[in-house]
Amino acid sequence: MEAVITTPDVLKAFKQTRAQTEFLCETLETEDFVVQPIVDVSPIKWHLGHTTWFFENFVLTPNSKDYQPFHPKFNYLFNSYYVNAGERWTRANRGQLTRPTVKEIFRYREYVEEYMVSFMEKNQISSELLKVIELGINHEQQHQELFLYDIKRILGDNPLNPVFRPSKETADVPPSKKWLSVEEGIYSIGHEGDRFHFDNEKGKHQVFLHEYEIASGLVTNAEFMEFMDDGGYESFQYWLHEAWDWVNTENVKHPRYWAMEEEEWWHYTLGGYEKVNPNDPVSHISYYEADAFARWKKCRLPTEQEWEVACKKFSPEISNSSNFVESKFFKPVQSEDYGFYGNLWEWTSSPYVAYPYFEIADGALGEYNGKFMVNQMVLRGGSFGTPRNHIRATYRNFFHPHLRWLFSGIRLAKHTNE
Amino acid sequence: MEAVITTPDVLKAFKQTRAQTEFLCETLETEDFVVQPIVDVSPIKWHLGHTTWFFENFVLTPNSKDYQPFHPKFNYLFNSYYVNAGERWTRANRGQLTRPTVKEIFRYREYVEEYMVSFMEKNQISSELLKVIELGINHEQQHQELFLYDIKRILGDNPLNPVFRPSKETADVPPSKKWLSVEEGIYSIGHEGDRFHFDNEKGKHQVFLHEYEIASGLVTNAEFMEFMDDGGYESFQYWLHEAWDWVNTENVKHPRYWAMEEEEWWHYTLGGYEKVNPNDPVSHISYYEADAFARWKKCRLPTEQEWEVACKKFSPEISNSSNFVESKFFKPVQSEDYGFYGNLWEWTSSPYVAYPYFEIADGALGEYNGKFMVNQMVLRGGSFGTPRNHIRATYRNFFHPHLRWLFSGIRLAKHTNE
Amino acid sequence: MEAVITTPDVLKAFKQTRAQTEFLCETLETEDFVVQPIVDVSPIKWHLGHTTWFFENFVLTPNSKDYQPFHPKFNYLFNSYYVNAGERWTRANRGQLTRPTVKEIFRYREYVEEYMVSFMEKNQISSELLKVIELGINHEQQHQELFLYDIKRILGDNPLNPVFRPSKETADVPPSKKWLSVEEGIYSIGHEGDRFHFDNEKGKHQVFLHEYEIASGLVTNAEFMEFMDDGGYESFQYWLHEAWDWVNTENVKHPRYWAMEEEEWWHYTLGGYEKVNPNDPVSHISYYEADAFARWKKCRLPTEQEWEVACKKFSPEISNSSNFVESKFFKPVQSEDYGFYGNLWEWTSSPYVAYPYFEIADGALGEYNGKFMVNQMVLRGGSFGTPRNHIRATYRNFFHPHLRWLFSGIRLAKHTNE
Amino acid sequence: MEAVITTPDVLKAFKQTRAQTEFLCETLETEDFVVQPIVDVSPIKWHLGHTTWFFENFVLTPNSKDYQPFHPKFNYLFNSYYVNAGERWTRANRGQLTRPTVKEIFRYREYVEEYMVSFMEKNQISSELLKVIELGINHEQQHQELFLYDIKRILGDNPLNPVFRPSKETADVPPSKKWLSVEEGIYSIGHEGDRFHFDNEKGKHQVFLHEYEIASGLVTNAEFMEFMDDGGYESFQYWLHEAWDWVNTENVKHPRYWAMEEEEWWHYTLGGYEKVNPNDPVSHISYYEADAFARWKKCRLPTEQEWEVACKKFSPEISNSSNFVESKFFKPVQSEDYGFYGNLWEWTSSPYVAYPYFEIADGALGEYNGKFMVNQMVLRGGSFGTPRNHIRATYRNFFHPHLRWLFSGIRLAKHTNE
Repeated sequence: MEAVITTPDVLKAFKQTRAQTEFLCETLETEDFVVQPIVDVSPIKWHLGHTTWFFENFVLTPNSKDYQPFHPKFNYLFNSYYVNAGERWTRANRGQLTRPTVKEIFRYREYVEEYMVSFMEKNQISSELLKVIELGINHEQQHQELFLYDIKRILGDNPLNPVFRPSKETADVPPSKKWLSVEEGIYSIGHEGDRFHFDNEKGKHQVFLHEYEIASGLVTNAEFMEFMDDGGYESFQYWLHEAWDWVNTENVKHPRYWAMEEEEWWHYTLGGYEKVNPNDPVSHISYYEADAFARWKKCRLPTEQEWEVACKKFSPEISNSSNFVESKFFKPVQSEDYGFYGNLWEWTSSPYVAYPYFEIADGALGEYNGKFMVNQMVLRGGSFGTPRNHIRATYRNFFHPHLRWLFSGIRLAKHTNE
Repeated sequence: MEAVITTPDVLKAFKQTRAQTEFLCETLETEDFVVQPIVDVSPIKWHLGHTTWFFENFVLTPNSKDYQPFHPKFNYLFNSYYVNAGERWTRANRGQLTRPTVKEIFRYREYVEEYMVSFMEKNQISSELLKVIELGINHEQQHQELFLYDIKRILGDNPLNPVFRPSKETADVPPSKKWLSVEEGIYSIGHEGDRFHFDNEKGKHQVFLHEYEIASGLVTNAEFMEFMDDGGYESFQYWLHEAWDWVNTENVKHPRYWAMEEEEWWHYTLGGYEKVNPNDPVSHISYYEADAFARWKKCRLPTEQEWEVACKKFSPEISNSSNFVESKFFKPVQSEDYGFYGNLWEWTSSPYVAYPYFEIADGALGEYNGKFMVNQMVLRGGSFGTPRNHIRATYRNFFHPHLRWLFSGIRLAKHTNE
Repeated sequence: MEAVITTPDVLKAFKQTRAQTEFLCETLETEDFVVQPIVDVSPIKWHLGHTTWFFENFVLTPNSKDYQPFHPKFNYLFNSYYVNAGERWTRANRGQLTRPTVKEIFRYREYVEEYMVSFMEKNQISSELLKVIELGINHEQQHQELFLYDIKRILGDNPLNPVFRPSKETADVPPSKKWLSVEEGIYSIGHEGDRFHFDNEKGKHQVFLHEYEIASGLVTNAEFMEFMDDGGYESFQYWLHEAWDWVNTENVKHPRYWAMEEEEWWHYTLGGYEKVNPNDPVSHISYYEADAFARWKKCRLPTEQEWEVACKKFSPEISNSSNFVESKFFKPVQSEDYGFYGNLWEWTSSPYVAYPYFEIADGALGEYNGKFMVNQMVLRGGSFGTPRNHIRATYRNFFHPHLRWLFSGIRLAKHTNE
Repeated sequence: MEAVITTPDVLKAFKQTRAQTEFLCETLETEDFVVQPIVDVSPIKWHLGHTTWFFENFVLTPNSKDYQPFHPKFNYLFNSYYVNAGERWTRANRGQLTRPTVKEIFRYREYVEEYMVSFMEKNQISSELLKVIELGINHEQQHQELFLYDIKRILGDNPLNPVFRPSKETADVPPSKKWLSVEEGIYSIGHEGDRFHFDNEKGKHQVFLHEYEIASGLVTNAEFMEFMDDGGYESFQYWLHEAWDWVNTENVKHPRYWAMEEEEWWHYTLGGYEKVNPNDPVSHISYYEADAFARWKKCRLPTEQEWEVACKKFSPEISNSSNFVESKFFKPVQSEDYGFYGNLWEWTSSPYVAYPYFEIADGALGEYNGKFMVNQMVLRGGSFGTPRNHIRATYRNFFHPHLRWLFSGIRLAKHTNE
């Protein structure tokens, strides 16, 4: 998102973002909005309600005396994890709620949206409140991406293999990756300036990096198949102790959504059930798998600091050809010029912890990021499910190391002369 | 159901039963058909598909050469537990399937139904096959009742308390129960004759019963509140060992669907959230609770043999005022003349086991009842969710002792002079 | 046990029983007394303390003003499940207690025993209290058998295969079983008279039995191997639904303690690791396996009433050659004259429920049997681990259907002319 | 440990370390050696066997042709997690093994120890093998500390509160902590040189640190009670999301081993059940609690790099008054001069990850540290259970953030001018 500082800019972004959410819903059946196959997945209709609740609860209710909440129980139903914002419906049971219906939730969206537009048009919005609205917009963008993870998880395990959107043709380009070098030195990390950013990336600070090399592109399906053919999933020595437990307990033998049919690998994509293209980047990889692959390859994953420094150096701008949600590919694609943005989130070797000067905001919004800073790993760069204006070099995404329903891939690094 | 022996009779029953299923769907939203809050509950749309699959798989496919299954994967999706009938989708994950949509399943119903009607009209149906069709009809009736348990479970925990069908007015009659006596002697138990029956009730056999007394009506909410007020849920001495674990682990303090508000008991009914009427029969009671209540009352539950003998003696006919699904009360009601049929299934003290000459049928239909004969308790008499023509004095229903999402209540018994 | 009605008789039985417990301990190492591999197993030292606590808590403390409990916390540590008798240490954590040491518990035994002897010698013991002492003796006998189940479970999974007591030589007699017939009629069931019995077998009552046949001996290892060779463990049609889940979840492929080595079956016995003798009775069988075997054999298990009537008819006396704990075989043996007593507990098809006139005693002793009357199956006849004077034709043992660390086997029954 | 480079030095350290293990056993009863209350705890006798197995398996078997293993199954029984070293007994079931007995394991220790001594005396030991022996010695020292965690966990939950060793008198000194400042700059982290070290601390490298302050001493019980009195355990805003789940699921209300009696705090110590001394360092604190306390105090925990730099600057030598296992206090003590060594391991805010140039050794010893580098947090400094010669400024200990049976405490840090 461009630096948003005026009310008209924020209003425009608000409308675009709300419209984008509705665009994503276009191809779904009512039934697709309702279910929650695992606790990590939320029902699509819950995403629609929750992103709307954010504006109602953090913008309208505290700032507009006239505002009447749409329904007295929606605060209870659509709060996610904000303890400050009151009691809430148990996360694991979101898939049990058949009411409100999808139609009612769309009415809820319309009600809040109209009020928001009118509120922003008719009032002088303080810069502090503008920041909350910007946060709400970015929050909805994050849920747009979760929406895609979740709908893939919902449709992708159905034996009928329903298509989310028909696949678009993409080029088949043999990848030509190379190693990019970064010199030893003191580098600046973290966000600086007024442009929108999350609290977890704030606080510019210095780090010392030893010389290293980082790959210019992502690991491909062909490379990952080599790992599999070499017995990668059966060889304990490549795996962290907890990862090896996970591989054996979950009986993991291949990336998520893959299946072998007549000695060929197929996988479910949002465009339907397709043969795996060896030249495409491998996706739906857990941290455990990314780490094991890197060890097998006698490389390693980059730290998040190494990733950020390389990104700023080698991709100072976001390329026009980067694969974000606006490209409507809904899958990772090949590219001669990969760059560091889009396609797939890239696991780093960095656990998600606070930056040196991290401060937690007061109130419910202080719960946005800080309280998750344990037992998760940082990912960088955005994916084909990320809105283009949502990403930055300093953006820190984070997930638990065993998860793989997200759009994740692998970029390798190594020490110079290894 | 009247003794069905001719094809026209069976065809008529088939049409009525299919129409009744669709009647039950009338008030539901699409979303209500999809979810599975606990493993014991199936999604409503699964019931619609599964009852149709029964006819497709056991009648049409094996008996009509021309028949084309509606969809190649529906056998996999809609088989419940018939190992003989092939692989099937995991029961616990039925609520993950958003496709086929509700509309598609209604098309499936129509497709199979039309074929069934035409098949029965155009062909000479063997009496053996007629029996399979009768079984399919009775099977669908059983799922109509499960449908009601399940939709109550789905809607009843929703904070919005959605109404299934508005409550009808019923009379408020103070109950006037008395003890009915049965003499010691040898009695016949089990089904005899050609009228439709399940395999588990077949095999007329003799039992010796000691003299006993059995209540003429069901335990009321008022009586159950006395138990609660007397500390029934907090007093280990009334509870079986496993029941006491259950009470404490599940933190059970009152019947399912009840809630205390401002010192008054309310409960969710299919007609919405209502005040508990003290004169109504208590419902949604587990075997554990029924057994504890009886012990507190210094009585006991009847055995299934005692129940059957008393039913034949005191309710030789099914009364016209009995509360079955056709009455459209959708809840237990009060009555001066209770009788032994309808209103609520009555827990007996009998574990569900085979009758002396029980034989398992060959093939998949042999899996219908016999394989569940362990760790479950017998219930008798039918409920407000049971079709009137589905019940008999010999009918054996069975559930695990901790369950209470079914329409269950309590009838007491005691030894004479106790 | 002979009808015990005088204090000297009870005192003699008390001394014998206490000595027998100590005899069983002779070959154990201190370490063997301490552990609890699964919740169903109790540490041996817990058995030693708990049986002693029974006398302290139910005999001495309430009846002897001068008695000083051995230790203020032993009531808390050695109460099993008597809610009436106060708070107690969690059953599942019994294996965490290293103190009191084995030596201290033996001192506790000695302390209570000496006091009991002196108390019985010096006082006039009421017949009511004599019955409590008799119950305590029978209680300790039950724990002697559990002691053997538990020490076998503790030693039997140890890779070092420790020997409890070296095996004694037994005859290898090819079994010559036949079918024994019982006529239709009304029979008396249950205990009558003053001789010691448990509350659950009390209350003589009538039952009507149809004609049936019952095997004169137990199913052998050879017969069970036939079932296995015929794919019994892999064929769902022989198994109850919950049994089939159990087989697959627990990956059951053979009786407990069996292992295949170089195409021969071996098993751990209390005499060590031995080759399975085909002519010996098969043991360590769950109800699920017994039921599946019977179905495969086109027979069934007897009901407990059928078993009791046949026992009284064909084994009116306990044979001198019956294999009880006094024979010191510590395993089931072959016999030309099996009879119905000893060797192995025999699963019946009867769930454990109350007899018609069952009454629960007041106070803690009322918790002895009644509260377990759900979800368990009755076994009859005693085993090689049972004291000879502990068993009767009316004796009802009971366990959950999946358990198989007990000394259990299979006797078949069938309807006449099946 | 002094830099060990000659065989005589290593031999001396070997003998001392082996003797120290036996010293720790002196006060235990046989029963105390056997049990495993939770999976994180190993039976004491397992520690005795496993540390011996290390020398047998990694030193004697591969390097001495004549060596006969003590028992063919001990490799199976005493391997911990070295997949390279073959199959092993399941960790969670270590507490099920009553055999080998404690006596046999002491014989095993003696057998291997004598062979080791003779082997080292009679042979020319390569420097590579010397390093393996050094590793074995350090490995046994680590297990000496685990021994103390485990025996405290075993005895500390026993209602009899057994004493491990009677408490020694210690001074009661009101703490006088102050903030120590460290300047911004590039610092060296990690071990350098030939002295013994683990692979995870190897690889000297540079880091940039911003200016910070670090407390001169540990948080006391008095300070922690303030947190508790201020509702710390009930206030979600101080806790990480997963920590808050942990607090509520485990119902955590105070540090491990604490109990309130008549409005005073008591706790179990290795010297018995004692009143909590407000001036003593608070111990048995999980990372979750340490982090919550720091947030409540408006401070933070130091990173491991900050800790190491401060330790090198302010405690260049290990003070003679530091509280290590040799002091035989067996609990944390007060001190005017705390320093950074001994007393309690100090949680840092650093997840346990690889240093920049970390390399995994070949073979089983490569599994020593590297495979645990996910989801754990680093602790520094050693404790009253650590041998004095085992610790270094660069030493990295690590545990999962919810654990608190270890000897852990809290040192605070903050940014300058916060």
